[in-house]
Amino acid sequence: MKTAIEELEGKGKAAKAASRRLAYLSTEVKNKALVNIADDLLARKGKILAANEIDCKEAEASGMETAMLDRLMLSPSRLEAIAHDVLAVAALPDPAGEVFDMRTLPNGLLLGRKRVPLGVIGAIYESRPNVTIDISVLCLKSGNAVILRGGKEAIHSNSALASVVQEAATRAGVPEGAVQFVENTDRALINHLLKMNSTIDLIIPRGGAGLIRLVSENATMPVLSGGIGVCHTYVDQSADAAKAVAIAFNAKVQRPTVCNALDTLLVHAALAQSYLPLVAAEWAKAGVEMHCDERALSILKPSSSLRLVPATDEDWGKEFLSLVAAVKVVDSLDEALEHIEHYGSGADEAIVTEDYSAAMRFLNEVDAACVYVNASTRFTDGGQFGLGAEVAISTQKMHARGPIGLKELTTYKWIIFGSGQVRP
Amino acid sequence: MKTAIEELEGKGKAAKAASRRLAYLSTEVKNKALVNIADDLLARKGKILAANEIDCKEAEASGMETAMLDRLMLSPSRLEAIAHDVLAVAALPDPAGEVFDMRTLPNGLLLGRKRVPLGVIGAIYESRPNVTIDISVLCLKSGNAVILRGGKEAIHSNSALASVVQEAATRAGVPEGAVQFVENTDRALINHLLKMNSTIDLIIPRGGAGLIRLVSENATMPVLSGGIGVCHTYVDQSADAAKAVAIAFNAKVQRPTVCNALDTLLVHAALAQSYLPLVAAEWAKAGVEMHCDERALSILKPSSSLRLVPATDEDWGKEFLSLVAAVKVVDSLDEALEHIEHYGSGADEAIVTEDYSAAMRFLNEVDAACVYVNASTRFTDGGQFGLGAEVAISTQKMHARGPIGLKELTTYKWIIFGSGQVRP
Repeated sequence: MKTAIEELEGKGKAAKAASRRLAYLSTEVKNKALVNIADDLLARKGKILAANEIDCKEAEASGMETAMLDRLMLSPSRLEAIAHDVLAVAALPDPAGEVFDMRTLPNGLLLGRKRVPLGVIGAIYESRPNVTIDISVLCLKSGNAVILRGGKEAIHSNSALASVVQEAATRAGVPEGAVQFVENTDRALINHLLKMNSTIDLIIPRGGAGLIRLVSENATMPVLSGGIGVCHTYVDQSADAAKAVAIAFNAKVQRPTVCNALDTLLVHAALAQSYLPLVAAEWAKAGVEMHCDERALSILKPSSSLRLVPATDEDWGKEFLSLVAAVKVVDSLDEALEHIEHYGSGADEAIVTEDYSAAMRFLNEVDAACVYVNASTRFTDGGQFGLGAEVAISTQKMHARGPIGLKELTTYKWIIFGSGQVRP
Repeated sequence: MKTAIEELEGKGKAAKAASRRLAYLSTEVKNKALVNIADDLLARKGKILAANEIDCKEAEASGMETAMLDRLMLSPSRLEAIAHDVLAVAALPDPAGEVFDMRTLPNGLLLGRKRVPLGVIGAIYESRPNVTIDISVLCLKSGNAVILRGGKEAIHSNSALASVVQEAATRAGVPEGAVQFVENTDRALINHLLKMNSTIDLIIPRGGAGLIRLVSENATMPVLSGGIGVCHTYVDQSADAAKAVAIAFNAKVQRPTVCNALDTLLVHAALAQSYLPLVAAEWAKAGVEMHCDERALSILKPSSSLRLVPATDEDWGKEFLSLVAAVKVVDSLDEALEHIEHYGSGADEAIVTEDYSAAMRFLNEVDAACVYVNASTRFTDGGQFGLGAEVAISTQKMHARGPIGLKELTTYKWIIFGSGQVRP
């Protein structure tokens, strides 16, 4: 084990050394690296797909589920899509180097904040090999060095993709060592990685709840991760019922397994009688199971097409990640706000209303990363928000909230131009 | 102990409830609260000074050192100065409510980030009672609720000051509960406070290294603290010697006990022969002890006025917090940069030079919260930077770097105005 730890330490030191140069590398060189990566993903398609085939065969032999196998598998068209996304990041503005709050103080000091990369980012992720490219590319564009530690099941694919990134980046003039790949997938090495706070500035876990918990509880450096998203959509008294049906349907059904999907539908009592049967009928077509409070149950007539279950206390504040929604009738906007305050996780919350004051109160009073009026919570996403891409969606309040894109992978330093000033 | 913990939990809940309203309280009301506080500090002078006298007498009887006693003591003129500072914060722009990155997406969604308070801030501090006012005022102005836990030695003063703040704020229309004061100074309660991550969003320790370590190691919520500042001033080959003497003198002597004071002086070999005797003579007048490497020692002739000590390995990277400076002769800017990279703590670093390219390289390549050209590192301070006031100086990279003023006590939320949009 000693040698593997020494090797990991060496990768950390090399990444840190590279990060010094990366911090002020020109946008031109960084963009050139991204274009090279996109080119090489296609030019070295054969090698990448061959490596991926080894992973897929091993995974199949070990009995991996079809859905997981599908996430692991690469194909020419998937590589083309990945290359396309890389070029999209190249086209985004470079966050590093931006100078803001610059001003001359009365004593003549010229002072401002300059946006700079965080330094070295560690990424620990599972299965999907495209994450190797996604994270490398976002880190390079924002001027960060990165240490990649992918899952065992995708080791051949990740290794091939990391080689492509390393060679393409170096050819463009990116300092060697900027992209480090940990070949050794021994789990014990993760524990060591999480203690390397002298070389790693931020760690990003991408994967299941188990991985995120392991990282959050053991990392000695800051952690950026999604956490859970318990998302409410509140249909106000004055809502347009057609919009409210479409929004609730989209928020629950379009991709139920993700953190910004609807978990609880709150409906104002004055609209419940007319609205609930409409949304229930639409949800029934997609097979949504409704966990209803007593008032909602009394409105919805049991029928063969509806899947109705009486709600229990555990349904409120639960992230379902499946085609299940909790449904509750409330008597006022205030009751909805209190419910969200109590049970929400600070991720994505929406109101559907045509009442201007209700909309503004909801925007002001709900404390969450993303607060919506008359739109589906499913929009919370770096791509949808126009940030181009994201490494994660944050539900924490410090540093960055919501989608973590290029700008959120930076910090700033104060730069001060003096002419001999001393403090009186 | 049970009752004290329940009481503390109650204060947490009350602060959190108040923070919901505070989040969108108008700047007018917040400023009015600050003006009331400034007024009441003077109007209730008698009561505050009487409470302070009890603390001072008890401290004197228990044998507190004179320097500490001085920090504890309030006087009419000190109260006036504190009231003056409160009005200065009232005059600063309100960071909350600022909307940025607002734009209309191709699908018609109007989306942007709105700056909002963090929520509830916990402050644990020692001795100086003015911190009660400083932190309350910065939290109120930025829209945060605050839980104050001051030291036992200042309990009567802090209690009197907190009452002034609470009454003055409530009178202005600030929701009750916004400023919580923990009367019970039992140390065990701190441990409980540090676990209250469901009500406290950020904890700020203000005090000695022991307190900061206790909080950093045990808090379950984010911590914002200064940490250590190992500050270098590099005198380049092309430096103006007079400026370099004045800057090194100021950085070391103006207030040696603080984190932005000079710890290590690096001098280019080409200038060392002429420069070192000049700075040594000035430092000698203030009684600075110089821990010199061999080359610096060989230049400086031992004399009765100079306090020269051969440097040991422990002197590099050491925060002296006293009239001691490590001194090293280097052969190049590169050597200086490497030394700072290796031994610096990412706080405040300075170069003295007339060489444009050296200045720009230093600004680009040094990774620290504040990077100076031709100025004293002692300027790192919220007031000096024009931020008005600060609760701490951060040496971490996430969220905020350098002085923590009003803006740094906020986060943002994404606000999205839709008209029925759903994700395709």
